[in-house]
Amino acid sequence: MKSYSRRDFLSRVGMGTTLLTVPSIMGNAQQTFGSQKKLGIALVGLGYYAEHLLAPALQQTKNFSLAGVVSGTPAKIDKWKAQYNIPDKNCYTYQNFDSIAKNKDIDVVYVVLPNSMHHEYVIRAAKAGKHVICEKPMAVSVKECEEMIAACKKANVKLSIGYRLHFEPFNQEAARVGQKKEFGVVKIVESSFGFKIGDPTQWRLKKSLAGGGAMMDVGIYAIQAARYCTGEEPISVTAQEFKTDPVKFKDVEETIFWQMEFPSGAVSSSITSYASNTERLFISAENGWLELRPAYGYGPLKGRTSKGELDLPIVNHQAMQLEDFAACILENRESSVNGEEGLRDMKIIEAIYRAIASGKKEKI
Amino acid sequence: MKSYSRRDFLSRVGMGTTLLTVPSIMGNAQQTFGSQKKLGIALVGLGYYAEHLLAPALQQTKNFSLAGVVSGTPAKIDKWKAQYNIPDKNCYTYQNFDSIAKNKDIDVVYVVLPNSMHHEYVIRAAKAGKHVICEKPMAVSVKECEEMIAACKKANVKLSIGYRLHFEPFNQEAARVGQKKEFGVVKIVESSFGFKIGDPTQWRLKKSLAGGGAMMDVGIYAIQAARYCTGEEPISVTAQEFKTDPVKFKDVEETIFWQMEFPSGAVSSSITSYASNTERLFISAENGWLELRPAYGYGPLKGRTSKGELDLPIVNHQAMQLEDFAACILENRESSVNGEEGLRDMKIIEAIYRAIASGKKEKI
Repeated sequence: MKSYSRRDFLSRVGMGTTLLTVPSIMGNAQQTFGSQKKLGIALVGLGYYAEHLLAPALQQTKNFSLAGVVSGTPAKIDKWKAQYNIPDKNCYTYQNFDSIAKNKDIDVVYVVLPNSMHHEYVIRAAKAGKHVICEKPMAVSVKECEEMIAACKKANVKLSIGYRLHFEPFNQEAARVGQKKEFGVVKIVESSFGFKIGDPTQWRLKKSLAGGGAMMDVGIYAIQAARYCTGEEPISVTAQEFKTDPVKFKDVEETIFWQMEFPSGAVSSSITSYASNTERLFISAENGWLELRPAYGYGPLKGRTSKGELDLPIVNHQAMQLEDFAACILENRESSVNGEEGLRDMKIIEAIYRAIASGKKEKI
Repeated sequence: MKSYSRRDFLSRVGMGTTLLTVPSIMGNAQQTFGSQKKLGIALVGLGYYAEHLLAPALQQTKNFSLAGVVSGTPAKIDKWKAQYNIPDKNCYTYQNFDSIAKNKDIDVVYVVLPNSMHHEYVIRAAKAGKHVICEKPMAVSVKECEEMIAACKKANVKLSIGYRLHFEPFNQEAARVGQKKEFGVVKIVESSFGFKIGDPTQWRLKKSLAGGGAMMDVGIYAIQAARYCTGEEPISVTAQEFKTDPVKFKDVEETIFWQMEFPSGAVSSSITSYASNTERLFISAENGWLELRPAYGYGPLKGRTSKGELDLPIVNHQAMQLEDFAACILENRESSVNGEEGLRDMKIIEAIYRAIASGKKEKI
């Protein structure tokens, strides 16, 4: 028994139904813009995500070409140059990065650096007159997010955050079911994302680079899910931190539980952890439910509702996200996952850390 | 891909492996005790659970016969007498219930009344010299539980609480996986049980009869699950109450979230609600996970682990529970779900209510 068919989904998005806050996302992603040349994009930071997710996704986009790279490691530059046929003049170090301003091949800069470096490199990219995509979390504080938004506004460049799940059909369907009250008013959202982290020397475990632990890295997906499934902004939060390995997690949090209240009366219960695996989105509404599991990974995702299995397209999340941002630039419209969207999550994350410290309910 | 087969399970229980705290539960349930006559049981309170769950389950037991009924409604008595061939002399009202002491046909009394009446009727049954099964929650306060335990001890009768899931294979497997560290140390337990309650006039919504709302009714399953999956007693709890319908829930809670810490460092996050459906048990351990969904209903239950689907016997929970208590009486041993087990949950429930009131972490 299927509650929604792929055909239903495609016909719905084809009709321009609003999913999340973006009109006809899927439509745009299929679109090309005449004979216009592709937008040139430069990746800043050539780690795992850039190499194994973004570079392959860029090959699937119609409106982007991987035109440049920025790295502090010459060997990486050499490898990428060879693999993607990138000219010398489009390769930068962190020292000479600002001279990218003069490079006509580069329209967009994608910042894929450790979290605490997002602020600096987004602002430098904006000052260089480039549109910017910044990986999540947008930064490590509300203040940084506000400065990044201001810098992009001043430079008149577009800013978007790497919230790939806004462009992923299962999460879009969860958002639609919640926001459109498909099963009545949403009462409870359960959203959890945690994994057992490996290498104890990695930057994710250093507060100076990551800004925090599991919350900054994967907890943010659970915050996002609660927000887009209710279509509301939380008004208050309680939170608890738990630590079983104070050596590995001397610098950042291991596990956080948090609970949010929304204006409609909907409530969410979430978990994030670097200690073990949990990955699920569950919406309990008055007359039915929806579950995604897995919910937030790179896919393939799976989901079901109280009516049956969800049969939705399996897509490349990053390609969909990139193509939407290309469309924003080419159509000169604001991204639905812009700096303000990143800022909203950072305000919640700061409230969660305050709630842990105070042991009390904190307003957001 | 199956992680555990039915054969593995049966061979394990046949070998007398301890599941929860009961040796060879399944084994006992299959057992008869020679030519001894069946134990006579009287049901006190002839509501839905007695009529649709317990009476049919009793027909499946080898060691119990439904010998008597206690009710304030003459029409119900007439119906049960006819259906189960119960003699007049084994039918009681709440007024003449104490005279059951003289009735040799009745060995055991099963109290299936609204929660706030458990205390009185368990004590009256004990004074009448009958062994007692009391539905969960055991009572509505720690003080009541302690008095019930003392009364049964004084009368030298056995007391057990209607924790049917201790005798249900999927929950037993969850307990085994957690306690035996099948996937390493348990880090996080997620356990939720809620449903959308119907009839606004029912006793479950009256504090004087129910003692509380969703927590007393179904939240207790989520507490139980966290306890038997860790094999530990929680040491502290934080909790939050949420209410969207202050008319329907003027007397009792609608939704509660709570978080418990265990001595090993394991933590649990739980939800109970009368506002919408949620029913799941999830254990995240160091190297794998187990999920039951549905987890706590009358069945059939379903489950899976990080290794694959669980293929376990589908049983009548109430029949298994009843047969174990018969074995306890016939073998003169203590029930694993005795009054102390009920008391443990009530101490946690009181701590949860204290944590809601204080807005702080409360010790248990």
